Amino acid sequence: MKVILASKSPRRKELLQTIFKDFECIPSQKEEKIDKKLNYKKMAEKLSEQKAEDVFLQTTGDRLVVGSDTMVVLNKKIYGKPKDEADAYKMLKSLSGKTHIVVTGICLIKEENGISQKICTNVVSKVTFEKLTDEEINSYISSGEPMDKAGSYGIQGTFRKHIKNINGDFFAVMGLPVNKTYELCKKLNVI
Amino acid sequence: MKVILASKSPRRKELLQTIFKDFECIPSQKEEKIDKKLNYKKMAEKLSEQKAEDVFLQTTGDRLVVGSDTMVVLNKKIYGKPKDEADAYKMLKSLSGKTHIVVTGICLIKEENGISQKICTNVVSKVTFEKLTDEEINSYISSGEPMDKAGSYGIQGTFRKHIKNINGDFFAVMGLPVNKTYELCKKLNVI
Repeated sequence: MKVILASKSPRRKELLQTIFKDFECIPSQKEEKIDKKLNYKKMAEKLSEQKAEDVFLQTTGDRLVVGSDTMVVLNKKIYGKPKDEADAYKMLKSLSGKTHIVVTGICLIKEENGISQKICTNVVSKVTFEKLTDEEINSYISSGEPMDKAGSYGIQGTFRKHIKNINGDFFAVMGLPVNKTYELCKKLNVI
Repeated sequence: MKVILASKSPRRKELLQTIFKDFECIPSQKEEKIDKKLNYKKMAEKLSEQKAEDVFLQTTGDRLVVGSDTMVVLNKKIYGKPKDEADAYKMLKSLSGKTHIVVTGICLIKEENGISQKICTNVVSKVTFEKLTDEEINSYISSGEPMDKAGSYGIQGTFRKHIKNINGDFFAVMGLPVNKTYELCKKLNVI
């Protein structure tokens, strides 16, 4: 079956390669709409569903579409991608020395012989940063790494020296809950 | 200061690159000696110390030597590198569907102006595997990946689809506790 990842993130692509050798990447062009009444888990799930659905509707034939969304949350506040370097500084300063939550939504939509099936869920992880000095924050920002990442950091890059602890799914924090995706793929009989 | 990693593991090398741009890799040739009276934490610490010390004694000048050792423990049993494929099968079958402990020892020895300083500690992480089928175990063994790894698996490779949860330091499970190493390097004033 044709597999489509509804993302252009190189991290998600690398992670999905653990499950599928060949797939296409088609990012969703739709603007993300968040229903603010939802809790964080359902919000991340809904956003992954929106991405998967948008790409599903643009494509045809027997196929599996995989959508995922990652959200960083601290004290009920959502940290998205930074607008600029000053915003990245503010986020990293807030996350410094604390444990925050990373919610990753995952949605799979499959169509086979005209029958479509959708399955969505979410994975929650907790990540603890060591206390960062201003020098460390600025040095990381000047690497350019924070700019395309929720919460202004990537757990897998040079920032890993500042990660004190993770409790959950490391790969979900990176962008795709690999074990959960694998489990859902088995449930949908696509592997 | 010259930095030496007392290992030839490509994973440890990649991880230490988060902290140092340039360093040499000199694996310890000494046979690992385990004092079976020690607890697992002290055992991993001692092994990392033996590695660092062996390489430290073979080298001269102002330098920092980094040694690390990873141990997989389940029900008080230590899982080392597999002897052969049958051994890898046995280990993976035992770890399947369970939470095991990964202890990573880390030892830094620094010499500067004739004064040497040693600092050792350990990091404990818990890793949960999903329940594996025989087919999944055999497919992973046939990839060749398990053969040079404690516990017969690498958390960062194709096996990641089977990792349900981690609580601790992902990079310590991979081979080097990056955040702890970074902290100790700051303590020794080498960065």
